[in-house]
Amino acid sequence: MGNGPLLLLVLDLAGTFAFALNGALTAIRVAQIDIIGVLTLGVITALGGGIVRDVVIDALPPATFSDWRYLVVASAGALIAFALGQRLDRHATAITILDAAGLSLFAVTGASKALEFGLGPVQAVILGAVTAVGGGTVRDVMLQRVPVVLRSELYAIPALVAATITVVASKVDAYGAPVAVIAAVICFGIRMLGVRFGINAPRPVDR
Amino acid sequence: MGNGPLLLLVLDLAGTFAFALNGALTAIRVAQIDIIGVLTLGVITALGGGIVRDVVIDALPPATFSDWRYLVVASAGALIAFALGQRLDRHATAITILDAAGLSLFAVTGASKALEFGLGPVQAVILGAVTAVGGGTVRDVMLQRVPVVLRSELYAIPALVAATITVVASKVDAYGAPVAVIAAVICFGIRMLGVRFGINAPRPVDR
Amino acid sequence: MGNGPLLLLVLDLAGTFAFALNGALTAIRVAQIDIIGVLTLGVITALGGGIVRDVVIDALPPATFSDWRYLVVASAGALIAFALGQRLDRHATAITILDAAGLSLFAVTGASKALEFGLGPVQAVILGAVTAVGGGTVRDVMLQRVPVVLRSELYAIPALVAATITVVASKVDAYGAPVAVIAAVICFGIRMLGVRFGINAPRPVDR
Repeated sequence: MGNGPLLLLVLDLAGTFAFALNGALTAIRVAQIDIIGVLTLGVITALGGGIVRDVVIDALPPATFSDWRYLVVASAGALIAFALGQRLDRHATAITILDAAGLSLFAVTGASKALEFGLGPVQAVILGAVTAVGGGTVRDVMLQRVPVVLRSELYAIPALVAATITVVASKVDAYGAPVAVIAAVICFGIRMLGVRFGINAPRPVDR
Repeated sequence: MGNGPLLLLVLDLAGTFAFALNGALTAIRVAQIDIIGVLTLGVITALGGGIVRDVVIDALPPATFSDWRYLVVASAGALIAFALGQRLDRHATAITILDAAGLSLFAVTGASKALEFGLGPVQAVILGAVTAVGGGTVRDVMLQRVPVVLRSELYAIPALVAATITVVASKVDAYGAPVAVIAAVICFGIRMLGVRFGINAPRPVDR
Repeated sequence: MGNGPLLLLVLDLAGTFAFALNGALTAIRVAQIDIIGVLTLGVITALGGGIVRDVVIDALPPATFSDWRYLVVASAGALIAFALGQRLDRHATAITILDAAGLSLFAVTGASKALEFGLGPVQAVILGAVTAVGGGTVRDVMLQRVPVVLRSELYAIPALVAATITVVASKVDAYGAPVAVIAAVICFGIRMLGVRFGINAPRPVDR
């Protein structure tokens, strides 16, 4: 993969930063919490999905928790959100874009890691999506909100698409940095279309 | 045990289906969620208890997650609930019965598996109950409800009874398909009596 | 360490009792729950933090769950709270003191155990705090409250201080019962000052 791993690491850290920033901002808007709360929820949003995946695949202690770079980047994102707070609102579009980038990258790297640890293809797809949406889900539960992933716009679906591409490519021995990037870009595109046009997944009909 | 394991597998899958159906229906009634939410919450209700048990006893990756049959049956239950929605309300009794069956079977198989992995008898009883009620508890937390098991009718108690019978029988080397069925039937009976007569566990007196 | 381990065990069990009592009382005040709910939430408050820590460091099954002494002490605390209920309100100060003691002890023993299992120093500090505040956080999430640790008074900060002292002392080979007691006493002092004077951690400014 040549410089692939380095590229993926940089992208993964960028996604971590975006998730922490976005997670901390969500927390500040929704609840009366202090600096510890903002830091905790920012870091949980950024690292929670990967931790849940690593618990399930028995890759403990969790990689993003053991690797200080992830902790530093996630803490930095949360503290910047704490310091700047609502002044970041004018950058809402930039933050949504970063969040979509994080979603895309985590879905790909999450599915890929699950395969490495010997999980089946369907399980790897699910764990790719869990890596992408798990942190935000834990944050929402702690903030007493029905998790975003259960109710709004296209969020889990693009993650599932990216994870599926990753798994299929791996099964035909075509996985590598190029496929990873393509899968992430497709996820990113679907997510941004969902945000732009307010597309939602189907809902139960006869409520 | 002869055909015991096959019988238990069939019963376990029936319980999984019932939990997924019931979990998804509860989710549809309680919250504004989309198809991803219904599927997620149905599957979590069905598989969540076993996953928590397997994390605690270090049997990772969790069996019900690795075994595609459980994933397929749980997804099918959730999707049927999504498709039929409130039309299933007229079958409320059937669903309550299926749910009680799931509770009973999971309590027995959960306690049995904990013993296999070397946990002590008290721990195995607790993990039997966790297997039975854990999935519904995670669902309720995600839906912002105080978990059913903490507040209503006889739900945890029959599960604890079935798990205790299982553990005691194992300790005197009498465990097998017949005891498993007897334990499950007793749990089922207590649960249905609790539902029928609205029996609740004691509450704190001096509120 | 001579009698150090015995002293730490006694203190750890005292903290477990205090957490269970306090957790069960909180549950009784906040929600309409039955005896199973009180018992469950008391035990989760007491053992939840250590269980989360042991999952992350891969020390499974979790020590406080496997060791019957912790289960017995936690159950006793929860059942006493159930039996006495609001009559314990007049002992609120005593319970707050016991809770602060539990916080202090769990932060120290949690950080120490994380180091033993090979986690890095920053990770050990975080896990010390998670051990101390994790159980109460899970309880609050199950009761639909924004977790105390995210919003009020000095709770996580003294735990982080005690865990940091523990980790630094270990790194310079000075850790032992005396340092453990000193770290716990400092945590206890900061926590009680926070309670006494209603000190809170800083909040986001521009809400």
